[in-house]
Amino acid sequence: MNRTLEHVLPKDIEKRSFEIITEELKNQGIAIREDKAFLIHRAIHTTADFDYARTLCFSENAISIMADLIKSGAHIVTDTNMGLSGINKAELKKHGGEVHCFMADEDVAKDARERGVTRATVSMERAAKIPENVIFAIGNAPTALISLKQMYDRGVFIPKFVIGVPVGFVNVEYAKELIMESTIPYIVNRGRKGGSNVAAAICNAVLYEIRNGRL
Amino acid sequence: MNRTLEHVLPKDIEKRSFEIITEELKNQGIAIREDKAFLIHRAIHTTADFDYARTLCFSENAISIMADLIKSGAHIVTDTNMGLSGINKAELKKHGGEVHCFMADEDVAKDARERGVTRATVSMERAAKIPENVIFAIGNAPTALISLKQMYDRGVFIPKFVIGVPVGFVNVEYAKELIMESTIPYIVNRGRKGGSNVAAAICNAVLYEIRNGRL
Repeated sequence: MNRTLEHVLPKDIEKRSFEIITEELKNQGIAIREDKAFLIHRAIHTTADFDYARTLCFSENAISIMADLIKSGAHIVTDTNMGLSGINKAELKKHGGEVHCFMADEDVAKDARERGVTRATVSMERAAKIPENVIFAIGNAPTALISLKQMYDRGVFIPKFVIGVPVGFVNVEYAKELIMESTIPYIVNRGRKGGSNVAAAICNAVLYEIRNGRL
Repeated sequence: MNRTLEHVLPKDIEKRSFEIITEELKNQGIAIREDKAFLIHRAIHTTADFDYARTLCFSENAISIMADLIKSGAHIVTDTNMGLSGINKAELKKHGGEVHCFMADEDVAKDARERGVTRATVSMERAAKIPENVIFAIGNAPTALISLKQMYDRGVFIPKFVIGVPVGFVNVEYAKELIMESTIPYIVNRGRKGGSNVAAAICNAVLYEIRNGRL
């Protein structure tokens, strides 16, 4: 534990944090592919949990596919208002995109109750009707991933990109594996861990990398 | 890893999750004090990280002090809009309280820039002027905790309650220890881990326990 005060200017705190993360990964002997480091580092920065260096999984060319979608104006749909709150909407807007979360909509709740499904399931069906390309940033509900996979299996909707990082204990691991078994481009955190904060961190990592001209 | 689908009704997912958490803590031989279990379980539920069973620290009677504050209409000030988004505002409102986050206010940013301090520092000074009792729910900025401790040391403001769960690598552990060395009632997650999601989970755990008549 570091109990002494480190004098770092506000503007340098994030930079210093990433240095520490890089250093510790090296000390722990964890090798990360150079082209994914910016994203894995940001997930660790958000959680202080080095497990993400081992559990984040990427489909082929996932990052460049996601970046291209953003640059062509894709929208982001998330399954929590915390996720919506955490994603940098101003950066996304520069490319024409918007962030949506339908979870708190009254008619989503009503439809879910009547059908005995989760609000996440209904939210995903609604998201499938957005005319623009959509990146799904799922940090909470495994049923959101299951719903996307079911639409994909039935051929009614092919998600362009899924960030599958729900957290939890019931069907979370199952739902993540479902996405990874499909041909949908993904970034998934294998296992139980994840969260709205991680979903937002992944979106922001790519947005900032685009801003900095590296994607 | 559990890769098979468990058939659980939407309304029972949370209950089943808490059963799994209780069971695993038992299997791992981690004993938790009965009166704190509801809160520690919710932190684990939010993160899937069992570390919280070992690192969450409570000042004497912390939970009942926090519950009494809520029941008497205390407000909550958080240091991120994600935290604000995650705290159950409808439950807090039943007792007369509101949730605030000043981080994105234009004049907070301006003041911080001019003084070379973080926006969190300025936000805490602003929160100290709220006439109602305030519970601080800090999930991101160690400088928020340092600012609160400095006001406390100068005798200009005595925080009624601090949830100190910032996440990170620079001065996070230092700031948490500062709070724990004071006489301020607290719930602190020792170490680097925490987050806005954890801060919100702690607030909601106490709100729901009050709603269920157990506090």
